[in-house]
Amino acid sequence: MNPVLVVGSVALDTIETPLEKCENLLGGSATYFSLAARHFTPVRVVGVVGHDFPQIHRDLFHRLRIDTEGLQTAARRTFRWHGRYDQRLSGRETLSVDLEILDLFRPELPDSYGDSKFALLGNTSPATQERVLRQLHRPTFVMLDTMDIWIRTEREPLAALLPKVHALCINQEEALMLADSINLVQAARRLLEAGLKCLIIKRAEHGATMITRDFAFSVPAFPTEQVTDPTGAGDAFAGGFLGYLAKTGVDASNLRRALLYATVMGSLAVESFGPDRIASAALPEIDRRFAEMVRIISL
Amino acid sequence: MNPVLVVGSVALDTIETPLEKCENLLGGSATYFSLAARHFTPVRVVGVVGHDFPQIHRDLFHRLRIDTEGLQTAARRTFRWHGRYDQRLSGRETLSVDLEILDLFRPELPDSYGDSKFALLGNTSPATQERVLRQLHRPTFVMLDTMDIWIRTEREPLAALLPKVHALCINQEEALMLADSINLVQAARRLLEAGLKCLIIKRAEHGATMITRDFAFSVPAFPTEQVTDPTGAGDAFAGGFLGYLAKTGVDASNLRRALLYATVMGSLAVESFGPDRIASAALPEIDRRFAEMVRIISL
Repeated sequence: MNPVLVVGSVALDTIETPLEKCENLLGGSATYFSLAARHFTPVRVVGVVGHDFPQIHRDLFHRLRIDTEGLQTAARRTFRWHGRYDQRLSGRETLSVDLEILDLFRPELPDSYGDSKFALLGNTSPATQERVLRQLHRPTFVMLDTMDIWIRTEREPLAALLPKVHALCINQEEALMLADSINLVQAARRLLEAGLKCLIIKRAEHGATMITRDFAFSVPAFPTEQVTDPTGAGDAFAGGFLGYLAKTGVDASNLRRALLYATVMGSLAVESFGPDRIASAALPEIDRRFAEMVRIISL
Repeated sequence: MNPVLVVGSVALDTIETPLEKCENLLGGSATYFSLAARHFTPVRVVGVVGHDFPQIHRDLFHRLRIDTEGLQTAARRTFRWHGRYDQRLSGRETLSVDLEILDLFRPELPDSYGDSKFALLGNTSPATQERVLRQLHRPTFVMLDTMDIWIRTEREPLAALLPKVHALCINQEEALMLADSINLVQAARRLLEAGLKCLIIKRAEHGATMITRDFAFSVPAFPTEQVTDPTGAGDAFAGGFLGYLAKTGVDASNLRRALLYATVMGSLAVESFGPDRIASAALPEIDRRFAEMVRIISL
């Protein structure tokens, strides 16, 4: 089984929904990714936390056999995010963010991580993503995340990364912005023409779509009635996708199945405040949801 | 082959997009429905037009063998709608609407229509829908459309219709509003508990979902790059669905295939101003798109 590497944030989140408020939850993209991917394959985390990062969270990573050798500790406060969701639990606003610790973060892979064949380059500047990519010896499948701020301010370096990775995993708005289009089919065509091999569009409650040069594949979201907190769903989605792929290997069939497992992990992530639900889920439950997804798309 | 009946509007539309403006196009829900459904089965139209309704449009219906015996002509102006789409061709505003002719419209089915086994009760007041339903002798599959205004102002009569029809075909917002929920899974459960047999959710560019007591089935939208005018897509969707079902008969497999044909007809509808594209499409093209849809959802 191939381990999967993730470079991203490990954070302390304060989250408000119309019903509840929870403070200082374990959060961050690398956290949600790891907790989803570890159901399929070993995980290696590269990130940074502050001196105030609670030992109980380190214990959780340790207990779940998530390798944190690449998790640096800096003499700052851990990255914090405070957000509030709207009535529908879809839109959200950031009330405060403390990302001083990320300013100085220069991801250095431990020597033991250099042989990672599967990796997520989490949402950082393209320069940082490029820097990580150069430290990977011969990766099989590297997935890129990004967001609107990098598309606006670092378009060229970001575009230069597209031919060097194996997939880009973003939402529809970001894909349209990156391709300067109002049509997703056109946007996908342009990004593939720019050298991208695989575009994965996250559509939240509407599912996800994967577009490669050879095929397109679309799945709905897993139908869950218990949406508690959407935080981390996209990162858990990426973790399910890459974790399954690292476990099984890359081919057209596994790519499709990986998209279903991604959807399943995203559905679990939203069912609790913070990452409890994906941390505690067991493989039989994950496989049951996968089987239900297969039924929902079967003609 | 069973004919399919539609009760709905036949209109003259003026449509503006960021690129073009077209005036007095043939429009209306019954029009788009008929032009889509007629690819699969004979169609019977119940509606009303004014003395100003152009002969060329009547000729089109006639040429395509759409039965307009139930299309009344009143001494008023034909129903007119003038709308403008936003940059993304998703949101739209109504600039003007002339629906005086609909005030007096009391749909009366010609005697020859009473044996219709498949029918769409288009978006009118629940009282009007009930009135049409009573004129159908022993329908096999009746589908209901509605919109926010009826959900707000005629909730009780609308709810009373749910157990009497076979499917409700609406968008996600309408389903949430009707079930008073913010979660689609919960909304679907409530509507099925209220006696509905089949809920069909139209998700526009994100596809569609069908939920019955026995199964759920989701499909993406057909990936078209050439979105010109979204008007009528939902009605063409309904026409493809019911037309295919009337042709093949109702079972779980045909319901799923009908949802794919619905999606195909919706995708054709958006590719031209007005209904030209669904009027002129040929069955081989429709079947090619169906085959592509099957590929896109195949694991």
